Amino acid sequence: MKLKKDDSEGIPNDLPSNLVDRDNTKVDTVINVNGINIGGGDIVVIAGPCAVESRDQLLDTARQVSGYGANFLRGGAFKPRTSPYSFQGLGEEGLQYLSEARELTGLPIVTEVMDTREMEMVCDYTDIIQIGSRNMHNFPLLKEAGKCRKPILFKRGLMATIDEYLMAAEYILKGGNDQVILCERGIRTFETSTRNTLDLSAVPVLKQKTHLPVIVDPSHGTGHRWLVPIMAKAAVVVGADGIMVEVHNHPEEALSDGMQSLYPEGFAQMMKEMEILAHAIGKEIFHLKHQPA
Amino acid sequence: MKLKKDDSEGIPNDLPSNLVDRDNTKVDTVINVNGINIGGGDIVVIAGPCAVESRDQLLDTARQVSGYGANFLRGGAFKPRTSPYSFQGLGEEGLQYLSEARELTGLPIVTEVMDTREMEMVCDYTDIIQIGSRNMHNFPLLKEAGKCRKPILFKRGLMATIDEYLMAAEYILKGGNDQVILCERGIRTFETSTRNTLDLSAVPVLKQKTHLPVIVDPSHGTGHRWLVPIMAKAAVVVGADGIMVEVHNHPEEALSDGMQSLYPEGFAQMMKEMEILAHAIGKEIFHLKHQPA
Amino acid sequence: MKLKKDDSEGIPNDLPSNLVDRDNTKVDTVINVNGINIGGGDIVVIAGPCAVESRDQLLDTARQVSGYGANFLRGGAFKPRTSPYSFQGLGEEGLQYLSEARELTGLPIVTEVMDTREMEMVCDYTDIIQIGSRNMHNFPLLKEAGKCRKPILFKRGLMATIDEYLMAAEYILKGGNDQVILCERGIRTFETSTRNTLDLSAVPVLKQKTHLPVIVDPSHGTGHRWLVPIMAKAAVVVGADGIMVEVHNHPEEALSDGMQSLYPEGFAQMMKEMEILAHAIGKEIFHLKHQPA
Amino acid sequence: MKLKKDDSEGIPNDLPSNLVDRDNTKVDTVINVNGINIGGGDIVVIAGPCAVESRDQLLDTARQVSGYGANFLRGGAFKPRTSPYSFQGLGEEGLQYLSEARELTGLPIVTEVMDTREMEMVCDYTDIIQIGSRNMHNFPLLKEAGKCRKPILFKRGLMATIDEYLMAAEYILKGGNDQVILCERGIRTFETSTRNTLDLSAVPVLKQKTHLPVIVDPSHGTGHRWLVPIMAKAAVVVGADGIMVEVHNHPEEALSDGMQSLYPEGFAQMMKEMEILAHAIGKEIFHLKHQPA
Repeated sequence: MKLKKDDSEGIPNDLPSNLVDRDNTKVDTVINVNGINIGGGDIVVIAGPCAVESRDQLLDTARQVSGYGANFLRGGAFKPRTSPYSFQGLGEEGLQYLSEARELTGLPIVTEVMDTREMEMVCDYTDIIQIGSRNMHNFPLLKEAGKCRKPILFKRGLMATIDEYLMAAEYILKGGNDQVILCERGIRTFETSTRNTLDLSAVPVLKQKTHLPVIVDPSHGTGHRWLVPIMAKAAVVVGADGIMVEVHNHPEEALSDGMQSLYPEGFAQMMKEMEILAHAIGKEIFHLKHQPA
Repeated sequence: MKLKKDDSEGIPNDLPSNLVDRDNTKVDTVINVNGINIGGGDIVVIAGPCAVESRDQLLDTARQVSGYGANFLRGGAFKPRTSPYSFQGLGEEGLQYLSEARELTGLPIVTEVMDTREMEMVCDYTDIIQIGSRNMHNFPLLKEAGKCRKPILFKRGLMATIDEYLMAAEYILKGGNDQVILCERGIRTFETSTRNTLDLSAVPVLKQKTHLPVIVDPSHGTGHRWLVPIMAKAAVVVGADGIMVEVHNHPEEALSDGMQSLYPEGFAQMMKEMEILAHAIGKEIFHLKHQPA
Repeated sequence: MKLKKDDSEGIPNDLPSNLVDRDNTKVDTVINVNGINIGGGDIVVIAGPCAVESRDQLLDTARQVSGYGANFLRGGAFKPRTSPYSFQGLGEEGLQYLSEARELTGLPIVTEVMDTREMEMVCDYTDIIQIGSRNMHNFPLLKEAGKCRKPILFKRGLMATIDEYLMAAEYILKGGNDQVILCERGIRTFETSTRNTLDLSAVPVLKQKTHLPVIVDPSHGTGHRWLVPIMAKAAVVVGADGIMVEVHNHPEEALSDGMQSLYPEGFAQMMKEMEILAHAIGKEIFHLKHQPA
Repeated sequence: MKLKKDDSEGIPNDLPSNLVDRDNTKVDTVINVNGINIGGGDIVVIAGPCAVESRDQLLDTARQVSGYGANFLRGGAFKPRTSPYSFQGLGEEGLQYLSEARELTGLPIVTEVMDTREMEMVCDYTDIIQIGSRNMHNFPLLKEAGKCRKPILFKRGLMATIDEYLMAAEYILKGGNDQVILCERGIRTFETSTRNTLDLSAVPVLKQKTHLPVIVDPSHGTGHRWLVPIMAKAAVVVGADGIMVEVHNHPEEALSDGMQSLYPEGFAQMMKEMEILAHAIGKEIFHLKHQPA
């Protein structure tokens, strides 16, 4: 491609349509992981603790979210934390517990990578690689993700416009990996009642602009446990292809994000309510249809 | 009340609970207008043009939204416009057309007041008085609204935190008028794909903090016609007591807000979809239950 | 003027240049009040308490700021306050104290009007009428200001773009009053270390777009006393035509804005430092040149 | 250190004071690079192109900024770009040209690192390592910077509060590198007249909270060439220890940031004006005192 003079960091307007554009790929991208379709019409649910804190914590939480119908287990082994004195994650030990939890429950796993040097290793352990909000503009990491053979769950930066977000996803597709799942997780605004402002209109806007699947993370989007199920249901209604929520077997003891983590029972209740709304709009929560009760 | 030293414009913390607080009034406020309950569990729908442009435009639009199930007719006679060269509204002539539309359709009317000097006159014509986003901190107007004998539809400022918004509503209640309907209509953020960012989590947050009814305006919240029904449905799901939407009989000819105004047929379709979601959460769109078809 | 279809609240682009535009009026507007020029190259200083709280408080503060070189006395008689339980101002009694302070010190006065019904009265008492941030989009008030025979100190709304701000000023000019002084006073952002984020680049941007004088309010812009002189000096350097600061004879007892109010001695010190910077860029603080020491 | 339960991503409050805190280190940190002190009272100037585009472009620009008094040469070899189709930098070839420019001019160099895998290599070439806004929360990179033997020019994220910014700097200090230079470069707001909103009050706020030196980047802070010198001067006045500006020998041909890049002659003019202001507040532009003309 010819180099282009570009007077700003703005998005070039005179290029042929990008790989992420719906104009370029009319058919919705469906990402199949172990038989579970993300973007295929049904709604997938990713659940688990913010951080893998211990073998017991993870396995117990995994068993419970699996029992209540989650399709994927989430859990962070490498944690981006505002303070260097906060818990930073268990590293590879955490990845091993995630593997063990997968064997135990059959749930494919989603975990975050933060460092280009760890992409290979994380890729070996996980089924879906998460790139978090703070790394939305970590371009070397996006380029590595482009070479990766696993799907990427790619979260919106908390101060990224939708166009910037799509151009960042373009790095991954351009690199050769078209298995990208977008995730709205709240943007930073002046409002302080919620941790972020969950931008639910971003879901239909993204679905109009791109063929990639879009999920919603109401845990980070709100920061408060009681708001999570309410916003999860709204996410279903605005057309999200899935939900990612934090669930902890003992939120009051969590090393991170305890206030926004669901109790397992709260997760179970949310699943039932989401199912009712999914049915109302002619959709299914993935597992309820495809898995034996 | 004793004067209090207050080092900032911040909200005083050492006061007895405010009139707007749920702690102060445990029972949800229900506002009855001509037999229609706002806040009573069912969902009300306020529809009509941004501005009253002519007798024909208003009566035609009114007839159509009434036929499709709206509970209230909205329409601005006094219009707050960014530019002094934009259409400023028909003034009292517009209020007369609104009265005529009410006689024709039986729909109670909602219209905005911007000037303390016009409060009396607008109050004589309308069933619900709207105070718009730009006047959320127009304290003399709020004080007049406090003396008013009609319910106030009070929109959140596009730059207002939820706490500031509730303290502004407090002006109206303190003035003697406890018939206040809150309305989330989008906040200003850095995102430009939508006109504002509709803060749907504000609905449950408001419902937790106050006993006042809360409705949502997805027209201003998104700025795009196609997004309005999607976000209206999400508003129902997060617990809104009603929806206010702009409908125009010929949006492409509208003197304001044409891009975000629904066609009457789009409004009809939205009503059907909203009804399905209302039923899914055990609610009704008001008219469907109480009015003869 | 022909009505124009306008699909949004956006600013129309196809109009002849507006009255506020520099393209329309090449020469800088200079506003003369009692022999003091605002916009004429020298820097004016407006100082005084946030609110007029008592005769003693005002006269004492007025005497002191006058002695230290202020050109105008500010003080609010009608106060826009977030909470209805905060001090709301003394009303006309406050205006009378301001008149008395003018007689005592010779300083012309600046005070805020919030209600169209009070424009006439405030106009009778004051030399410059202030329209505050919260009323930047109070269009009936702007229209009254357009008919007013006194200069208008017109503050930027805390979430208004520069273009919206100028279109709001256009209301006043279009109404017939071309004596408008613009005032940057901080915008709302996500940052919480300061009360607002003082947007100093707005000063040269405004000076480029319009012929109107521009002043800066570092008191509201920062919310902290110790930051006020620092940002006042920077305001001089970026080209502001003046500064408006809050000074209180006993800030620790102020009924509003105490934390951001200068002590009289701090004001005196700020004036000396501002003078040095004004000289460095070839300007003067107004009084130092024109008044006898 | 004992692990701490932390219910949010918030900054823990119950820790002993952090390494970045002024309470912890009363004396201002002064960073000496080749005899040039950053933070020692004088003002340093870092100048050069956004990106190293070619040997000629860099050497020509370097010669000019050196001639006009810059203390450091900046230039990006690894470029974070919104679009993958924009120029991504010359990589190690760019670093080699920077070395050559250093030999030619004697100016120490500042260049950005984006990838943990490249920290070692960039560290070998450069005198100061830059970590850009988009990587402010790239924690693995911050940890590598902590092990690095070169000073870190660490830019504020465009969405970061001052407290978050300082906690991110804490990662570098905790890692063992106390040679950190902070840099305010504008934050994202709703305003669109400027590329970002340069938060100049952040300079005194940072200087109060931390002992680290603070510089300002008015090029990214404004996005417009004509605003750069104005805001650079204001930065001097609010207490910045230095300025970083983009200068290109042919801005109209720049592959990135051309609109905000100074012409060499504009840079020369800015230096003269900055010197006047530095003198007015009792400071010097570093080179003018210490280097032979």
